[in-house]
Amino acid sequence: MSTQSRRITVAIQGEAGAFSHAAALQLLGRELELVHCASFEALFAAVAGGTAERALLPIENSLHGSIHENYDRLRASDLHIVGETQLRVQHCLIGRPGASVASIRTVASHAVALSQCRRFFAERPEIEAVVAYDTAGSVKDLLDGGLMTQGAIASRLAAELYGGKVLVEGIEDDPQNYTRFLLLAASSAPHGAADKTTLVFTLRNRPGALHEALGVFARRGVDLAKIESRPLRGRPWQYAFYLDVLGDPRGTAGEALAELAGLAEDLRVLGTYEGGRPLAAEPAVAAQV
Amino acid sequence: MSTQSRRITVAIQGEAGAFSHAAALQLLGRELELVHCASFEALFAAVAGGTAERALLPIENSLHGSIHENYDRLRASDLHIVGETQLRVQHCLIGRPGASVASIRTVASHAVALSQCRRFFAERPEIEAVVAYDTAGSVKDLLDGGLMTQGAIASRLAAELYGGKVLVEGIEDDPQNYTRFLLLAASSAPHGAADKTTLVFTLRNRPGALHEALGVFARRGVDLAKIESRPLRGRPWQYAFYLDVLGDPRGTAGEALAELAGLAEDLRVLGTYEGGRPLAAEPAVAAQV
Repeated sequence: MSTQSRRITVAIQGEAGAFSHAAALQLLGRELELVHCASFEALFAAVAGGTAERALLPIENSLHGSIHENYDRLRASDLHIVGETQLRVQHCLIGRPGASVASIRTVASHAVALSQCRRFFAERPEIEAVVAYDTAGSVKDLLDGGLMTQGAIASRLAAELYGGKVLVEGIEDDPQNYTRFLLLAASSAPHGAADKTTLVFTLRNRPGALHEALGVFARRGVDLAKIESRPLRGRPWQYAFYLDVLGDPRGTAGEALAELAGLAEDLRVLGTYEGGRPLAAEPAVAAQV
Repeated sequence: MSTQSRRITVAIQGEAGAFSHAAALQLLGRELELVHCASFEALFAAVAGGTAERALLPIENSLHGSIHENYDRLRASDLHIVGETQLRVQHCLIGRPGASVASIRTVASHAVALSQCRRFFAERPEIEAVVAYDTAGSVKDLLDGGLMTQGAIASRLAAELYGGKVLVEGIEDDPQNYTRFLLLAASSAPHGAADKTTLVFTLRNRPGALHEALGVFARRGVDLAKIESRPLRGRPWQYAFYLDVLGDPRGTAGEALAELAGLAEDLRVLGTYEGGRPLAAEPAVAAQV
């Protein structure tokens, strides 16, 4: 019995062609069926309730930093992190077939995407930016009855899915624009290839507590990729700390985690998984579609 | 020559009656003249350009966490942190004079304030929440031609300033709702009463670097109130770290800072100042107006 050809169900927040969709293709390949969620709450619920087997959760952008509310949601949920990928966010100006840059007068996209393409608009004062609910959704709307004078900013994937024409590629101000996505599931991943562990813990409030906690890793030469802090409800100015720990959890990284569990007030492993490969200059996302 | 009675000019983001205004009164007393800024960029510019002597910058909320973009703005600017205060965020339902809770059908406020009063709306399905640009601004608009069926959510200060009637006080879901504000100036504060130092630094990217950095404080028993990380532009997945260090900067805290300056790739003190007093159950803000 082979399950190779079965399509895996993947929850994303947003429309088909969203950057979350591109991340899902990059991580899982073409054989997937999207479950569209209107909010991140719905995305967690889709996996917890069995509507989707996996979810793609954006957790950090190299320009804007962490998506902090998603850290809170990870802590509040019972889902497990089972994978990770980094997607280069490359914005395209997309028009209807037959349109040209010269014909465009208004360009719709999500506010964040518009804010990442300021130079494009500054150099073209004749083009007005219009805030829309979604990047890919603005392409869908454009092809579904838009005008030749209208454009949208979204991924190349969105253009391909909805039949739009890429008029200009890479109009983002800063090409060092990457978003890191976590892959979530209801059960934990097999540990075979795991080289990264994400955990959350709280500490008793006393001088040096965080230094002592980080010492369990430093003494063993275990590398930390990330530290993040989030407020604790009902305990003003106290924090939960999130760490991304590198290394095989069956080796020294695991020993360090066991020691930290003894020091922390409260500690939970959110997932042990294969970390995303180092940043490629040009992830071949479009080629996979 | 006495300057006691001269009114200090203070930039805030938002309208009179905003929580930033309440924080300014709590920290500086009544003798102040507000400079209203439409954005945080304008607020920094007002002090840098001499339009205002001080600015109140919200930096952290006990429920929502840090206002991360304001950390980025502190790092990008040459202003100094010269003080701090913590304000209890207590939301009031405000109506026109003569209105009663029973008469209210729509309530306007900033989206964040509305989201902090979910229970109030859940218990009163006949009342519709309406998103507005500002808490205090929604009170101003209400008194400036609103209806008896309309209400607003804002501070008691806003009700008093615009002549509104407080219909219900303390409608926030969680009373442990505090916002911490920094006081900014163009020059650094005299060190006399300073017991807190905020700094930002970057580290060479190698295992244990953050642990080593925090060790300069732990070894001396110097307490850290806060650690925050923010992405570095052009260096994906590398971070600037912000620390709030407690203790007299002329004592052991200062020695620790000097040692850290030798370890860090880049370090800058954003300010040395008198930290806010521990949380009072009920800061007497309204009484100062």
